Amino acid sequence: MAENSIPESAFPRVVIVGGGFGGIELAKRLKKQDVQVLMLDRHNYHTFQPLLYQVATGGLEADSIAFPLRKIFKGYPNFTFRITEVLRVDPQLKTLETTIGDIKYDYLVIATGSDTNFFGQKKMEHFTMSMKTIPEALNLRSMILQNLEEALISSDPDAKDSLMNFVVVGGGPTGVELSGALAELKKHVLPKDYPELNIDNMDIYLIEGSAAILGGMSPQASKKAKDFLEEMGVIVLTDLLVESYDGAVIKLSNGRSILTKNVLWSAGVKGCVLEGIPKESITKGNRILVDPYNKVKDLENIFAIGDVAAMITEKYPNGHPGVAPAAIQQGEVLAQNFLRMIKNQQPKPFIYNDKGSMATVGRNKAVVDIGKIRFQGVFAWFVWMFVHLMSLVGFRNKVVTFVNWVWSYFSYDRGIRLIIRPFSRESMTEDITVK
Amino acid sequence: MAENSIPESAFPRVVIVGGGFGGIELAKRLKKQDVQVLMLDRHNYHTFQPLLYQVATGGLEADSIAFPLRKIFKGYPNFTFRITEVLRVDPQLKTLETTIGDIKYDYLVIATGSDTNFFGQKKMEHFTMSMKTIPEALNLRSMILQNLEEALISSDPDAKDSLMNFVVVGGGPTGVELSGALAELKKHVLPKDYPELNIDNMDIYLIEGSAAILGGMSPQASKKAKDFLEEMGVIVLTDLLVESYDGAVIKLSNGRSILTKNVLWSAGVKGCVLEGIPKESITKGNRILVDPYNKVKDLENIFAIGDVAAMITEKYPNGHPGVAPAAIQQGEVLAQNFLRMIKNQQPKPFIYNDKGSMATVGRNKAVVDIGKIRFQGVFAWFVWMFVHLMSLVGFRNKVVTFVNWVWSYFSYDRGIRLIIRPFSRESMTEDITVK
Repeated sequence: MAENSIPESAFPRVVIVGGGFGGIELAKRLKKQDVQVLMLDRHNYHTFQPLLYQVATGGLEADSIAFPLRKIFKGYPNFTFRITEVLRVDPQLKTLETTIGDIKYDYLVIATGSDTNFFGQKKMEHFTMSMKTIPEALNLRSMILQNLEEALISSDPDAKDSLMNFVVVGGGPTGVELSGALAELKKHVLPKDYPELNIDNMDIYLIEGSAAILGGMSPQASKKAKDFLEEMGVIVLTDLLVESYDGAVIKLSNGRSILTKNVLWSAGVKGCVLEGIPKESITKGNRILVDPYNKVKDLENIFAIGDVAAMITEKYPNGHPGVAPAAIQQGEVLAQNFLRMIKNQQPKPFIYNDKGSMATVGRNKAVVDIGKIRFQGVFAWFVWMFVHLMSLVGFRNKVVTFVNWVWSYFSYDRGIRLIIRPFSRESMTEDITVK
Repeated sequence: MAENSIPESAFPRVVIVGGGFGGIELAKRLKKQDVQVLMLDRHNYHTFQPLLYQVATGGLEADSIAFPLRKIFKGYPNFTFRITEVLRVDPQLKTLETTIGDIKYDYLVIATGSDTNFFGQKKMEHFTMSMKTIPEALNLRSMILQNLEEALISSDPDAKDSLMNFVVVGGGPTGVELSGALAELKKHVLPKDYPELNIDNMDIYLIEGSAAILGGMSPQASKKAKDFLEEMGVIVLTDLLVESYDGAVIKLSNGRSILTKNVLWSAGVKGCVLEGIPKESITKGNRILVDPYNKVKDLENIFAIGDVAAMITEKYPNGHPGVAPAAIQQGEVLAQNFLRMIKNQQPKPFIYNDKGSMATVGRNKAVVDIGKIRFQGVFAWFVWMFVHLMSLVGFRNKVVTFVNWVWSYFSYDRGIRLIIRPFSRESMTEDITVK
């Protein structure tokens, strides 16, 4: 294939679409095995999504939570990488249509993860900010700072308020971590940066549709997270839905409306399904139905792992949670199963080992559930930091992130408040995909 | 003024245009003095330009060499900052036209620095890359990596070569440091990242119009820098001019032409003069003529410092060199003179204290001139690193940069090889200015 000059190989070709947690684990486990591994991604780097909110709020450099994919697989003889957008899969021809031409596969693994779910509300999609990629996080950082600069020069009090108010929609881990980080910016950073602004006028709302935030965690965790946020001055509203947002006023289901230019949407995700996957194989949340071996329903030689895959089990009737450990474990088991299949051995079914879940609210404030063990506060916060630091890819990233965290801890500062690329709605879409 | 709501003050207002080395030093020296200081800049951060080439070549995060201006002046009671583009100065009305409305001044200080000089060659400006701002450095980083990815999938050998060849035009410190960094990428990083490419086919040229590179330094320094570069595999061509470049082929004055998609232009700078400065006050290099007190020729209450200012003296018939120390020293003296003027005392003339100059070529390879003392090599390299580390604004930046340098030194790696914002010529201009 001239367009993409992918090396020929005597071994069966495993094409992995997506360099997230699942795709990376799978490719690592296939090192030096009798398969040709071809990874495709829109970006040339792996993104550590759990820390995107720190990039958006000036706590970390984008480069600290991303890692070049080529570097991860340096010295893998049977590994090839290409930057490309996959347009379509043709299960009959076992071919992918991509922006760099057609690519044949023997086994296809869809590890494309998930994207923000606006539930079809186009206006929300246009006017709110979401945060699933590094360019999106950088756009959010720029927008927050640009709106504060604009508030400074605006003489209309309403306009000032709407530029300074923040509404975070969705009380999952991302929403909790974002609103907590904004509260810390408000408390420790902005009054010094903007002495001319009356920062007390800044309101930070967290809006959750269900009865409690962090619904996926224990009642203790979700209760404590709410207390932490309220201590920090975040207005937490539950059992509320967003009715509409026009870029200036957000209307809630209880009739209340808030003036704000800053609406952060973290209310849901949907699987990034490839064109060509029959809709019979897709279930709610736009996830791909897979059997206990991560094979896609009704399709041969096509597998899905991680956020995009829904493996329905008794314990997980809606599939496994869309978290890194589930993706990593599925990548690991699928790699073993490929090697079994090649040797004509029986594959083994996937069983999820839930190591627990955690979320951080702010300085010395986090919540952790590990099985029946639940704890919150300072120790939970250190556990959260340790786990996330260790999960970062690359020693350099670990050290730089550690330095930044130690620095922030003692200085109460979030130093990376730079508008390096001004945000504009027009440039947004172009920003977030590699053409 | 409603548009920019700049606080009123009983003190005379000093408006500083530009948050570079000179502007920052001046504003710092006026802390708590009987003046109102208003700083204007297109960006909300200070850029440490001497290290831009490391951002462009994956050695440092952009955030490590930039620092938020508001943070520098935290706790300055008489300091105000605004992000804006200055459109015009009206010396009669003592007013600046800006994108956030008109701004009055009592004293105006033009500290706008310099920009890339293409000497009117529009094609050069369109097809080559320059590197005076952080967005430009990030664009350069993305372009280099994107072209390598493209070389990978291209089947035409000529196209492959042109995507892998680099031509750096201009043998000043920037050109020397850039071509040196590219040579290290070629040697230590790219063969591992792109095993499919024949990296030996990559040619790196440094083209200088005069007889020697680093013309501003001692003959020893310029000779040694050339030796270093050639050791590292850079093809150094002197006494050569660029005749033309059409985005594919660069033609040199000796008739030679090189196939390349990567032309880096560092062949000259010009002062960023504000509209409204009479052309009688402007001299060659588009610099503003100033007297020994940095007052602009023929104008009252308007001053210029740093790269944009040309103070003609016997020792410096073309004005002082466009380097940070000159800008800093002028900012310092001008601050003292403002305080004198306010007290109706005589200002004192500026005398430049040349602390010497240095340039780095690569690992263990730098050249240093301090007065009559000249040395090159490992020690010079450590001196270069120490001086630059100490000059970085902010403790966090110093530490993070130090970590990155130590890491690179032992790993021979430049880890920050991320295409975070794909480069496209169309999006370029929008990228590099705050609207």
